[in-house]
Amino acid sequence: MRLSRYFMPILKENPKEAEIVSHRLMLRAGMIRQQSQGIYSWLPLGKRVLDKVNTIIREEQNRSGAIELSMPTLQSAELWQESGRYDAYGKEMLRIKDRQDRPMLYGPTNEEMVTDIFRSYVKSYKNLPLNLYHIQLKFRDEIRPRFGTMRSREFMMKDAYSFDLTREGAEHSYKKMFAAYLRTFDRLGLRAIPMRADTGPIGGDLSHEFIILAETGESEVYSHKDFVNFDIPPADTDFDDVAGLNAIFDKWTSVYAATSEMHDEAAFNALPEGERLSARGIEVGHIFYFGTKYSEPMGAKVQGPDGKEHTVHMGSYGIGPTRLVPAIIEASHDDNGIIWPASVAPFDAIVINMKAGDAACDGVCDKIYAALSKAGKDVLYDDTDDRAGTKFATADLIGIPVQVIAGPRAVANGEVELKDRKTGARETMTIDAAINKLLA
Amino acid sequence: MRLSRYFMPILKENPKEAEIVSHRLMLRAGMIRQQSQGIYSWLPLGKRVLDKVNTIIREEQNRSGAIELSMPTLQSAELWQESGRYDAYGKEMLRIKDRQDRPMLYGPTNEEMVTDIFRSYVKSYKNLPLNLYHIQLKFRDEIRPRFGTMRSREFMMKDAYSFDLTREGAEHSYKKMFAAYLRTFDRLGLRAIPMRADTGPIGGDLSHEFIILAETGESEVYSHKDFVNFDIPPADTDFDDVAGLNAIFDKWTSVYAATSEMHDEAAFNALPEGERLSARGIEVGHIFYFGTKYSEPMGAKVQGPDGKEHTVHMGSYGIGPTRLVPAIIEASHDDNGIIWPASVAPFDAIVINMKAGDAACDGVCDKIYAALSKAGKDVLYDDTDDRAGTKFATADLIGIPVQVIAGPRAVANGEVELKDRKTGARETMTIDAAINKLLA
Repeated sequence: MRLSRYFMPILKENPKEAEIVSHRLMLRAGMIRQQSQGIYSWLPLGKRVLDKVNTIIREEQNRSGAIELSMPTLQSAELWQESGRYDAYGKEMLRIKDRQDRPMLYGPTNEEMVTDIFRSYVKSYKNLPLNLYHIQLKFRDEIRPRFGTMRSREFMMKDAYSFDLTREGAEHSYKKMFAAYLRTFDRLGLRAIPMRADTGPIGGDLSHEFIILAETGESEVYSHKDFVNFDIPPADTDFDDVAGLNAIFDKWTSVYAATSEMHDEAAFNALPEGERLSARGIEVGHIFYFGTKYSEPMGAKVQGPDGKEHTVHMGSYGIGPTRLVPAIIEASHDDNGIIWPASVAPFDAIVINMKAGDAACDGVCDKIYAALSKAGKDVLYDDTDDRAGTKFATADLIGIPVQVIAGPRAVANGEVELKDRKTGARETMTIDAAINKLLA
Repeated sequence: MRLSRYFMPILKENPKEAEIVSHRLMLRAGMIRQQSQGIYSWLPLGKRVLDKVNTIIREEQNRSGAIELSMPTLQSAELWQESGRYDAYGKEMLRIKDRQDRPMLYGPTNEEMVTDIFRSYVKSYKNLPLNLYHIQLKFRDEIRPRFGTMRSREFMMKDAYSFDLTREGAEHSYKKMFAAYLRTFDRLGLRAIPMRADTGPIGGDLSHEFIILAETGESEVYSHKDFVNFDIPPADTDFDDVAGLNAIFDKWTSVYAATSEMHDEAAFNALPEGERLSARGIEVGHIFYFGTKYSEPMGAKVQGPDGKEHTVHMGSYGIGPTRLVPAIIEASHDDNGIIWPASVAPFDAIVINMKAGDAACDGVCDKIYAALSKAGKDVLYDDTDDRAGTKFATADLIGIPVQVIAGPRAVANGEVELKDRKTGARETMTIDAAINKLLA
């Protein structure tokens, strides 16, 4: 993509409304724009990151055996009356009446709808286990939306819902998602710690929040330091292997980790002081086993091997992509801007032409841009006539992992400079060497 | 994907509510489910087709130079008051009040919002031309939604918006989209005919509907027969080449084509009888140049090369992916079910194990399934213990282009049968020959 033809509105001033660094940087880099309170457009640069995040989420959901569908944003109130949540849900639910005066709502979540889909089609235990997910917009009418897309009203969520014949089956489904989430966050460049979460009136111990550590996190979290060294389940993890998943789950839940809500000070203080980790955290995922909470009132039953009807056991599993993007920035930035992990960077590399219009510089940049693009790399080519300082500042701000800098002096020697955004390390090399390195 | 683990709820009975064949087949094949009037879930099989359609749309938008972003579904009423459309738009606009009693709406289209984005950032003609698009859910509260996702209330639309300094520039932008649309529909397996459309009070001749011919089309259309032989712009079309685009546009608008609204009976009847084509059509795209209709009231101006402020010229360009899926089915089906064009088929091939549980059949099917999957093909593997007749009927119904049939007798000879869904042609060959043919 040639920057001269792109739409990437960089802000020079720090936007006053932004309280946290990710919000500030997303506005400055032209990734998002607020359209009304807590409702955002994702501008082209932001959309690219969001797409890459969603692709990773999707790949890991599919790997674990979950199946993607797409449920609509608007739901009928009737469905929520069946579960009892229509009245129970507070003002965060956006209630709507259509032209025929039928009560509808903008879905804040989809337990009811997916249970309705399930009960309409699935009648036998032979079709279980089943895990259905979608990545869809949701709306929660927060009284005080803030921090940009970290806590917005219209937001995107990947929500998965598992259906099993038994509690044991449901535990297996839960652990599949547990492992899939570990892999997902790891691929996003995040170290997420699963922490026991409150299960509310349903009780039980099967609810975990996945928390990443960041100074600007919303809540205080407490954990054992060992988490940072735990192994991530490999790509060839067998999700059908109950014992294997149990081992992953047991390992990751073997040491202390809790949000402030679930914090047990005595247990934490019992750890040797050097092993305690107390920090701010951002919730980036939540998995929850809730048994028959929805299947019971909504009549989601299957025939079991015994010929009798059984109410199915369910769980739900959420990740918020529009929250993950700022969370990644909170975890990875410096004074100059964003530092994208390669897996979600909007572009793999930026080619900076230091003297656009100069035949030699143009030729070298065109060659590198063409070679990388042809090989399937996403490349941003700064072919504008901005000043060098502006170009460097922009490249740092938007956080592309590698900068290829083509200035007249280096180009005269047949060379360019490669700069690593994260380390700041610079290296001068021939043009072919640069291309080879970027394609390696 | 193993069918035994997939979620593809086939209906055996013809659903009574479906009036047209695409609606009937989408319900029977388990592609969609109505959640409330005119609001649908896309079940896994349908979601796959929708994704493939969107990928093609996106690739052709990008090729033409349009840039993707994502605007939200909910908009503030304020924005629509600026353009005057808040009051002008009828009951099809879903008006909403949030918890703070602020008037909002579920966007039926995005001219206002994109103009707001434009005016906030773009100040100079140097940043033009610009074409911004998104693929996003819309809502139009139709009094009588029908024909499944062909005319639903919540639907998906790809809407692009172009911005130019001059009318001439805007015409070039218009013709880029014209050519991109020809390519898009062609890749979707459709022959779409661009027809002059009514431009309403704005006037001018720059509005075209793209119509595909189908017996169940909503409206009568009239055109010259030559359209079916016109060349589609090639993949390497230079979208910057004004003369080249003019030639494409002139060719495709050189002969008679009109919807009933714009029909000129005298002009049509002046054609030799053998050249007249009168048929039912489905609108699958609409492009429209509307000048300064929104930029003027909303103050979207840029500084021109003359140093003065100029109100920008705009156009909008829509394709409805959730309508295209049934449109493709209307154009491509037989008595047994859907016949997907390869480009949008939910799976490239279906492997039918005629005797699941039989070691020889299982071995052959597993081998073919593994080989094709490894090569990146999307394969559905019918490993269920359904009867042969059921398996054949399902494969025909869901319209996968190639069926690989592994029955005990053929397998004993080291062979399988390949069936072409469209022609019905069957061919018996060795397992390796089948794999090679499918990977060719």
